[in-house]
Amino acid sequence: MSRYKQVQFTDVHIDGEFWRERIETVLVRTVPSQYENLQGHGILESLTVPRPAPPLRIPVGQHGLSTQLFWDSDVGKWIEAASYALAHRRDPAIEARIDAIAELLAKAQLPDGYLNCWYLSREPDQRWTNLRDRHELYCAGHLVEGAIAYYQTTGRRRLLDILCRYVDHIAQQFGPGPGQRRGYCGHPEIELALVKLHHATGERKYLDLAAYFVDERGRQPPHYFDVEATLRGEDPKQFWFKTYEYNQSHMPVREQVKVVGHAVRAMYLYSAMADLAADLGDARLKAACEMLWRDVTGKRMYITGGLGPSEDNEGFTRDYDLPNDTAYAETCASVALIFWAQRMLNLDCDGAYADTLETALYNGALSCLARDGVHYFYQNPLESDGSHKRWTWHPCPCCSMNVARLIASVGGYFYSTGADALAVHLYGGNTATISVGGRAVRIRQHADYPWSGKVRIEVDPDAPAPFTLKLRIPGWVRSYALRVNDQAWTAPSTNRGYVDVQRTWKAGDAIELDLHMPIERIYAHPSVRSDIGRVNFRRGPLVYCAEEIDQGAAPLAALRVPRTATASAVPRPDLFSGIVTIVAGAVRVAAAGGELYRPEPYATEPATLTAVPYYLWNNRGPNRMLVWLPEC
Amino acid sequence: MSRYKQVQFTDVHIDGEFWRERIETVLVRTVPSQYENLQGHGILESLTVPRPAPPLRIPVGQHGLSTQLFWDSDVGKWIEAASYALAHRRDPAIEARIDAIAELLAKAQLPDGYLNCWYLSREPDQRWTNLRDRHELYCAGHLVEGAIAYYQTTGRRRLLDILCRYVDHIAQQFGPGPGQRRGYCGHPEIELALVKLHHATGERKYLDLAAYFVDERGRQPPHYFDVEATLRGEDPKQFWFKTYEYNQSHMPVREQVKVVGHAVRAMYLYSAMADLAADLGDARLKAACEMLWRDVTGKRMYITGGLGPSEDNEGFTRDYDLPNDTAYAETCASVALIFWAQRMLNLDCDGAYADTLETALYNGALSCLARDGVHYFYQNPLESDGSHKRWTWHPCPCCSMNVARLIASVGGYFYSTGADALAVHLYGGNTATISVGGRAVRIRQHADYPWSGKVRIEVDPDAPAPFTLKLRIPGWVRSYALRVNDQAWTAPSTNRGYVDVQRTWKAGDAIELDLHMPIERIYAHPSVRSDIGRVNFRRGPLVYCAEEIDQGAAPLAALRVPRTATASAVPRPDLFSGIVTIVAGAVRVAAAGGELYRPEPYATEPATLTAVPYYLWNNRGPNRMLVWLPEC
Repeated sequence: MSRYKQVQFTDVHIDGEFWRERIETVLVRTVPSQYENLQGHGILESLTVPRPAPPLRIPVGQHGLSTQLFWDSDVGKWIEAASYALAHRRDPAIEARIDAIAELLAKAQLPDGYLNCWYLSREPDQRWTNLRDRHELYCAGHLVEGAIAYYQTTGRRRLLDILCRYVDHIAQQFGPGPGQRRGYCGHPEIELALVKLHHATGERKYLDLAAYFVDERGRQPPHYFDVEATLRGEDPKQFWFKTYEYNQSHMPVREQVKVVGHAVRAMYLYSAMADLAADLGDARLKAACEMLWRDVTGKRMYITGGLGPSEDNEGFTRDYDLPNDTAYAETCASVALIFWAQRMLNLDCDGAYADTLETALYNGALSCLARDGVHYFYQNPLESDGSHKRWTWHPCPCCSMNVARLIASVGGYFYSTGADALAVHLYGGNTATISVGGRAVRIRQHADYPWSGKVRIEVDPDAPAPFTLKLRIPGWVRSYALRVNDQAWTAPSTNRGYVDVQRTWKAGDAIELDLHMPIERIYAHPSVRSDIGRVNFRRGPLVYCAEEIDQGAAPLAALRVPRTATASAVPRPDLFSGIVTIVAGAVRVAAAGGELYRPEPYATEPATLTAVPYYLWNNRGPNRMLVWLPEC
Repeated sequence: MSRYKQVQFTDVHIDGEFWRERIETVLVRTVPSQYENLQGHGILESLTVPRPAPPLRIPVGQHGLSTQLFWDSDVGKWIEAASYALAHRRDPAIEARIDAIAELLAKAQLPDGYLNCWYLSREPDQRWTNLRDRHELYCAGHLVEGAIAYYQTTGRRRLLDILCRYVDHIAQQFGPGPGQRRGYCGHPEIELALVKLHHATGERKYLDLAAYFVDERGRQPPHYFDVEATLRGEDPKQFWFKTYEYNQSHMPVREQVKVVGHAVRAMYLYSAMADLAADLGDARLKAACEMLWRDVTGKRMYITGGLGPSEDNEGFTRDYDLPNDTAYAETCASVALIFWAQRMLNLDCDGAYADTLETALYNGALSCLARDGVHYFYQNPLESDGSHKRWTWHPCPCCSMNVARLIASVGGYFYSTGADALAVHLYGGNTATISVGGRAVRIRQHADYPWSGKVRIEVDPDAPAPFTLKLRIPGWVRSYALRVNDQAWTAPSTNRGYVDVQRTWKAGDAIELDLHMPIERIYAHPSVRSDIGRVNFRRGPLVYCAEEIDQGAAPLAALRVPRTATASAVPRPDLFSGIVTIVAGAVRVAAAGGELYRPEPYATEPATLTAVPYYLWNNRGPNRMLVWLPEC
C-alpha cells in the first residue's frame, strides 16, 4: 500500500548550516559523552554477564522496578545514534567501541540465542515471565535497531547477525503455535524494529513476527498480562497503572480510536501499525492509524509537537488537557511521533503528516538537546517559572539517545520516492543521490531554512528522466512563488500539500521555491483551558517562546501582547551563532506591590516583547519562559 | 490594647432571612446529622475509655497517623457548634446528648486531670511524647472551646469544670519551670481556646499559659520537636513535611513575616497572637500580626477568602500561587481566617479586617455547607471540570463542624463595643441587646443583605445615651447614602472604613443606610498566573461564579466576557428560595470539532452568561464552574 519509501539517511548528505551544526555536535560531543555516561553509570558493564549467574537480586526503583531492566535498550539506542552520526564522518575510535560491545553481547548470548543482559545476570530462570513490566522485548527491539543502523553505515554484519539469532529465538518463543507464548511486550518497540529488520534483510519472517505482536496485543479474554501475572503468583488487578490503556493493550489495536496511556509506547505502537499497513497493504490497519492520528493531532498534542501532559502515566489524559507549566511532553514521545508521522506520510504523501513531523522535529524534540550537546530535557514544558533545567544524565536516559539518533538521522526525513516520483518533505541544505524510476538523480538543495523560506533545488539525473518532483508546501504557508529553470511555474493547486512538478528532468535543471514566511499568531482551540486568552508566535516551522532574559527590565509575567500589535522578524547574528528573533509590540502591566484584587485592570505601559525559537530555550541558564503569551 | 470587644452570639438574635435560614438548617439538620455521624463512625464510642488500657495499637493512615488521633477535637467542635445553635432555640434532646458526653469524659479523665481519649485508650504511657504530630493539645483546645460555648448557652458548668481540671494539669506539665516540658502543640488551637477560657472564667493563669505556648513556639536551639523526636528514638530530620514552616515553628512567632505552612494551623496561631496582643497590650505581637496579615491578604489569598493552594501541606506555597482548579482552600482555613480577622478588627476597628472577614464568611467558608445542611466541601476550588462534589462525611471531618460552628455563631460577628462606641460590622436582620457605656442599648437591624445594601437600624437605649455608632462602609462600596432620623447625614470622611455617627441616642432613633451595590468586575494582580486575562463578577460581599447548568446550551468553556459587556443584577425568587443572579453580555466561541491550533482566533457569537453566588455552587449536582471568567 505504501506508495512512497524514505530515502535512507546514508544517501543524504546534510550541509545546510542549521542541521550540519546539530549533527556535528552530536558526532563530536553527544555520542562520545553518552559513551562515557554509559560507562560511568555501569550500563556498559551490565553487558558483561557473569557465568554462572549470580543469585536473584532485583534493584528497586519507582513502581518496584529499576531502570537497569532496560539498560540493553540504552546501549542499542546509543549504537543507533552513533551509527547515524558515523554516516556523516566515520570515526574508527567509535566504531571500535561498538565492535567491542558486539563482542560482549556475543559472549553473553546463550546457545539458544537469548540475549537480555539484565535477565542473564540476575534472573536467568525468569525470562519471559513478565512482559508487562520488564521491557524484555523492548530491549531486543532497540538492540536490533542499533545493529541495523550500524550495518547500514559500516556494512559490518557481526552485530546484526547476533541480533538475528536472538530474534529467531524470540520467533520460536512467541506466537499462536503449540508450546508458544501468546505474549507481546508491555512497551511496544520490537514491532517497528522487526519491520526494519525485514527491510534490512529481506526476510519475511520478521515482518510476520511484527504482525503477530501487533495483532495479538489486547486480545482477550483472557488478557495475556493477566495470565502472566497469575502465573507469577500475583493479582493482575494490582497493576500499578490500573488500566491496560497505559500500554495500549486494553483492546485489540484495530479497535482503538483514542490515543491513550503512556505516550512513547503509543507512538512506537502506531509506528509499527503504519509500517504493517504499508507492507501488508492492510487498509483496516491504515484506517485505525488515521483515526488515532486525527485524535492526537486534533485534541491531544501540544503546539510544539509535545505529547502527554501527565507525569503520572508519562502520557495522555483527557481531550484538550494541555497544561503548559506541568506539561510532561517527554522528548521520546515527540521523537516517536516523528517516526509515526514519517510512516503515515509515506502511505499517501499527505503533507498534513509532514507538517506535524516538521513541528515535532523543530520544536518538541529538538528542545531536548542543549546547544552544548551534552545536556538534555526529559520533559519539555511550555511554561517555566525558572525552575527547569537540562540535566547531564538521567536515571532513565532514554531521551538522550533518542534525540541523538533523531538528529543524526535527520537526512532520512528529507525525501521519499514513489512510482516515478520524488517527494521533497523538508527543506535545508543537502546533497542527495536518489534512485527514481531506475535513474540516479542527484539533488542539491540550497536553503537557509528554517530562518528563510527561499529554497533552490538543483536536479541532476544521470540521464534525462521523466518523473514528478513533489515539493511540499508546508501547512503554515499562505503564499509562495515557484520558478522552474527561471520560469514562473503556476500549479493549478497543491496535491495534498505538495506541488507536483511533472516533467522530464535533465542535468542543470533548477527550481527556486520561495515559501513566504511571515510571523503568525496562533490560537488554541478554546477547550484548551491553559491557552484561553493566549497567543503564540510562530514563524515557518518554528514555535517561538519568550524568555525573561530577553525582556530587558520587564518581568516576563508582566508582559501582555495587544491583539493589534505588530511583530517583526529580527535577525540576530550574535545570538546562538545566528537566529531570527521575533520582536513584538507589547504592554507591561505596572503592578509591583499592588493589591491582590481590585475593581479595575492594572494600568499598562508600552513595552517590547522578544521571542526566540522554543527549541533554544534554557540555553542561557534557567529562565522564566512562556510559549503562550497573554493577549490583551 | 484592644479597644473593642465582640458582642457575644448569645446577645444577638438573627432574624434576617439569609442567616436565619442557614442557622435553622444547622440546628435542625446539620447538628443532629453530625451527631449521627460521630456515632456511626465510632467517634463517640472512642470516648469510652476501657480500664485497664489495652495494649498499644496505632491505626495507620496518611503519613503513618490516623485521624482517630484527633477525634476528641471533632467531639469538642460538635459540642461548640451545637451550643451556638442551641442559643437560637434550646433543644433538650441535643442538650441531653452533650450532658452524656460530659459524663463519658468525666469517667475517662484520670485523677491527675489528663483527658485525651485516644491516648488513654491506646498509649496511656506515651502521653506528651509527640506534640509535633499527635494533636494532643489541639484536642484539649477544641474540648475547651466546646465546653465554654455550652456553658455560655446553657449556664451549665459540668463540662467546663472537667476541662478546667484538664487545663490545670496541662499548665503543670508545660512551661519553663523545673520539671516542666518546654513544649507546645504542632497544631495551634489550644492557645486561642485558653484565651477564651480566660475570658469565660476570669482566670489569669489561662492567659499566661496561652502566652507561654505562643512565645515558646519556634524557640531554638534546640528545637522542642527535635528534642522530642530524639527522645522517641527517631531522627528529627525524618519529619514528613521536611520543614517546621509546616507548623509555623520554624522561628519564634514574633519574627515571622511570611504566612507559611499548613493554613489552618497558621490561622489558629495568628488568632491567638492577636488575642494576646489585645489582652496583654503587646505592641510587638500586634505588629507581627499586621505584617502577617498584609502578607496573606496581599499575596496569598483567593478572592473567596480561601487560603492554601496546595494539597501537599494543606497550605501555602509561593506568593501569587493561586491556581483555581487545584485550589485546596480548606474550609477550616477560611473559617479560621474569620477568627483571626475578628481579633484584628477588634484591635483598632479597622474596616479592612472586616472586609476580609466578610469575604471569607460569605464565600470561601460558606461554600462548604450544602443547602441541605448535610453535605460538605473540604476543599473549595475556584474552578471545576465537574468532578467535584460535596461529601456526607470525611475521614477527617474537621471542616463539617467548623462551618457549623461558624454559621451558628454568626451573630457574634455583627457588633463590637468600645469605649462609648458601638461598631456595626455586618449587616442583616437581627435584634441585639448591647451594653454601651453602661447603658443597655437595643439594636434592631432590618436588611435584605447581602442581596440589597439598604439597611435600617433602630437604636433603642434604655435611657438617652451619648455614644458613637460606628457604621461599617464595606471596602466594596463606592457610594452610599446615610440618613439619621430621616435627615441626610454627611460624614466628612470615613474613619478606617466606618462612619462615626456621634450623638446622644434615644429611644425611637433610626438610621437608614443605603450601600450602593453595583456589579463590579474584579481583576487579580498580574502575578497571579491563573487569573491573567480573567475577570470576576462581585456584587456586595458576594463573589460570583458561573456554573454550566445556568448557561443554556452553551458549554461553559466556550463563554468569554467582553470587557465592555454590561452586566445586570437579576433577582431570581425561584432559585434557592430567592437569590440575585448576575446576567452579563458574553460571547460564545464556536469551535466544536475545530482545529487544535490555527492562525486566527475562533469566531464568536453573542451569548449570555449567568453567574450565581460562589457559596451556592454545586447545589444542583456536579457541574462545571468558573470563578474567574475569560475576558475578551
